Amino acid sequence: MTLKLYCFGESGNAYKAALALELSGLDWEPVFVDFFNGETRSEDYRKLNVQGEAPLLIDGDVTLSQSGVIQQYITDKTGKFGGEGADKYEVLRWVLWDNHKHSSQVGMTRFLMNFLPEDKRPADVIGFMQGRLQTAWSTLNTHLEGRDWLVGDSVTNADFSCCSYLYYPESFGFDRADWPHIDAWLSRISDLPGWKHPYDLMPGNPSDRN
Amino acid sequence: MTLKLYCFGESGNAYKAALALELSGLDWEPVFVDFFNGETRSEDYRKLNVQGEAPLLIDGDVTLSQSGVIQQYITDKTGKFGGEGADKYEVLRWVLWDNHKHSSQVGMTRFLMNFLPEDKRPADVIGFMQGRLQTAWSTLNTHLEGRDWLVGDSVTNADFSCCSYLYYPESFGFDRADWPHIDAWLSRISDLPGWKHPYDLMPGNPSDRN
Repeated sequence: MTLKLYCFGESGNAYKAALALELSGLDWEPVFVDFFNGETRSEDYRKLNVQGEAPLLIDGDVTLSQSGVIQQYITDKTGKFGGEGADKYEVLRWVLWDNHKHSSQVGMTRFLMNFLPEDKRPADVIGFMQGRLQTAWSTLNTHLEGRDWLVGDSVTNADFSCCSYLYYPESFGFDRADWPHIDAWLSRISDLPGWKHPYDLMPGNPSDRN
Repeated sequence: MTLKLYCFGESGNAYKAALALELSGLDWEPVFVDFFNGETRSEDYRKLNVQGEAPLLIDGDVTLSQSGVIQQYITDKTGKFGGEGADKYEVLRWVLWDNHKHSSQVGMTRFLMNFLPEDKRPADVIGFMQGRLQTAWSTLNTHLEGRDWLVGDSVTNADFSCCSYLYYPESFGFDRADWPHIDAWLSRISDLPGWKHPYDLMPGNPSDRN
């Protein structure tokens, strides 16, 4: 049965799940979620996911949300991307760090700087978030020094989670040139056979709304 | 062997792990981390955890960080708090939601409002974060309507994760009276045999620093 991933191009959180699905070899298809017209906040959508967010995976009678959960489900189905043995804790560690200290702030900052009308962009909040993000990127860059992947000897859900927002072209304070180990690692991931950019992998992108 | 949890009283993230340890029946002891004097950002501490954060669990030659990882380790050791069967995905879903949309913002807002000098508290950032938190508490309150626990029929890591910051006395915009289902659920958790308040379970609290 074809897995259905509710997603949209701009969502870095959806991309974490979409990229894992695409590289896992599972049969899947995207279902467009019209986030910018309020679909994830609608009553109907909240019946599917009280958290009011994409991504959402439907596999027959199984409905899952949170990108890290969908990644774990893919790992359980395919044996891929979860880390070997005790590395499963290291994979989960970076997925959680990404959710807590990285994607949460990147997603917000990118939204405020790019998807709000110019006169509604809160400069103090954006500046504060960008300061926090420098710390996060420093942590990531330090950990990647001398490593090909965040955990172990091959790509895992940790990489898919932490890399996701960093491929987007919109400005949010990140410059690959500032972080050489992050830069090399992003190239390593995008060189994987079958890799696709978020705007090529999922439906919808900013030019559709202009 | 006694498990050692590096933690401090003010850390809601450490409390998620400490509460799970305490209620699991495992033999553990807290090791005080002097966060407010910069210990988690020191070079020595970053050798233990490049992420520069508490909590950290040491079990012989195993070192783990991120509260959700420590919770999973406790579940793997004891069979407790991880949810039955497919509920494991639901437990992880709420742990991830908490990290992404709840604790990350609560921890920051509480820090800015209480642990920074009064003349350094950024009002715009605090106001913005409090707005986001109203949405998070609405999601939590809606999900808890008609439920005793976030997932299934007994307390799990999902509850320990989402409840942790909500027991602290410092102001950050949360009032139990506004959220009846959250209020009842917090009482249900604190009525569990062996439950302890974070300032009783872990060393260090604001009065030590006054």
